Amino acid sequence: MYQQRMADTIRQVGTPLCVGLDPVLSRLPGPLQPSDPGDRPAAAAACAAFCQGMLEVMAGEVGVVKPQSAFFEVFGASGIEALEEVVAVARRLGMVVVLDAKRGDIGSTAEAYATAAFDACGADAVTVSPWLGPESLAPFVARCPSRGLFVLVRTSNPGAAAFQGGPEAGPARAVADWIGSANERFLDADGLGPVGAVVGATLGADERAAWRARLPNAWILAPGFGAQGALAGDLVSLARSDGGGVIPVAARSVAYPPSGRDDADWQRGVHQRLMRHRRQLREAWQTFS
Amino acid sequence: MYQQRMADTIRQVGTPLCVGLDPVLSRLPGPLQPSDPGDRPAAAAACAAFCQGMLEVMAGEVGVVKPQSAFFEVFGASGIEALEEVVAVARRLGMVVVLDAKRGDIGSTAEAYATAAFDACGADAVTVSPWLGPESLAPFVARCPSRGLFVLVRTSNPGAAAFQGGPEAGPARAVADWIGSANERFLDADGLGPVGAVVGATLGADERAAWRARLPNAWILAPGFGAQGALAGDLVSLARSDGGGVIPVAARSVAYPPSGRDDADWQRGVHQRLMRHRRQLREAWQTFS
Repeated sequence: MYQQRMADTIRQVGTPLCVGLDPVLSRLPGPLQPSDPGDRPAAAAACAAFCQGMLEVMAGEVGVVKPQSAFFEVFGASGIEALEEVVAVARRLGMVVVLDAKRGDIGSTAEAYATAAFDACGADAVTVSPWLGPESLAPFVARCPSRGLFVLVRTSNPGAAAFQGGPEAGPARAVADWIGSANERFLDADGLGPVGAVVGATLGADERAAWRARLPNAWILAPGFGAQGALAGDLVSLARSDGGGVIPVAARSVAYPPSGRDDADWQRGVHQRLMRHRRQLREAWQTFS
Repeated sequence: MYQQRMADTIRQVGTPLCVGLDPVLSRLPGPLQPSDPGDRPAAAAACAAFCQGMLEVMAGEVGVVKPQSAFFEVFGASGIEALEEVVAVARRLGMVVVLDAKRGDIGSTAEAYATAAFDACGADAVTVSPWLGPESLAPFVARCPSRGLFVLVRTSNPGAAAFQGGPEAGPARAVADWIGSANERFLDADGLGPVGAVVGATLGADERAAWRARLPNAWILAPGFGAQGALAGDLVSLARSDGGGVIPVAARSVAYPPSGRDDADWQRGVHQRLMRHRRQLREAWQTFS
């Protein structure tokens, strides 16, 4: 079962932290910069090398990684080749790979996106957008519980509520309720299913608690830890009462220094920033022990 | 201006028809079937050859094509290479290319998706999902009016209303109103802007008319003509009072025979099915003359 693999991996490494892999060419360490940034295959290879270097540093310290498809797609076919390589390396290191692709379509097109994410790319789980309705999610649920998905419920960007609504009424609430039903036939011993939810970590405290309550059987993937401003303590209210069921995501605050680029010793920088996040989460999670 | 190029191209070929390019390996004509369907590069090349063959047949008869990204993504990097080739051929033939990708993200990730669609892939326009709010659409609007976008407003799959709502209230209506404002600074002589809307052609007549009224300055891309059951007459109510502003999309009813596969003479089959759709639209459009 995918969701059991997620729980086991998190237990093994001792942190629920997920690190986002968002390779941005201009921010890669100096030694990895390609001589011609306009050369797409070279740029894609540099991004792949950076992500693989990050994965080496993170092995044993992080159980879940989230490559962002867009940052590979900018390089066209070479970018997808790089993405496939990075996913394969992460899986070889025992990590659970959540492909952040936010796909959403219907019928055989949605099936094709599931095939692309799980089979061509090799991801364990994929993020999906619910706009087209429940049947747009069904082809991903059909791959459960050996694979998983995270449905965009409530993001925390300023304009998100315009079309999503809030936890009391509106489409995001309907999506949360749909997730609850979809999980029912797949629940594991912890009472969690393979259909997760994306809920922004930088939402207000009351709203975070409201979403956790509306999503009792779902893993919550919570972007916004680190560079986007959510603190480890903010993540606590997205966890279940035992501290489980939430996956805080930090991306740029691990990959890059606060300003400029890392130099030749860049893997040390990644390691330091990673260990700081691990420590922050461990301290915040003491409330559960 | 992208939207003027769209109008001119449609005028030149004499039909608003857009043909979807949805290559599905098992349905390709016999002579194009690869010897090993599991060989991804060979499968992707077969799909590219099929689409290029369709484009040859359609040159001068169709002004707009809509490749579906998912059907190329299933083949990984080779699929994206095939997609890039197909887009380049369509543009060389003077067609406007709408990449059907339904992307949706925020900030630099949304910018990366715009770069991927417009620069890496070379599309003139791309379909986008509004779930993450107005700012998720802004990076695509920033590329207007040299490029365009079509925002998913109201699709016509059975469960679409669950999260989208209808024309009277709900998020789809808010998206339609947002499109109206976004177009204002880009309007051409026809009063149309580069920010289009996707509205399903198989919605009921009243709802089609309601969406047309709520989207006075937007091109409507209307999937569902042909195989999905919408008739040419149904498309009339999505047009503006002069018959413009709507792009009916047919995909499988052009690419494939009603059952089975085409044989060696497959381009003739594509041509016949195409000409039937052109004729159906011409007859329905007589109401405007």
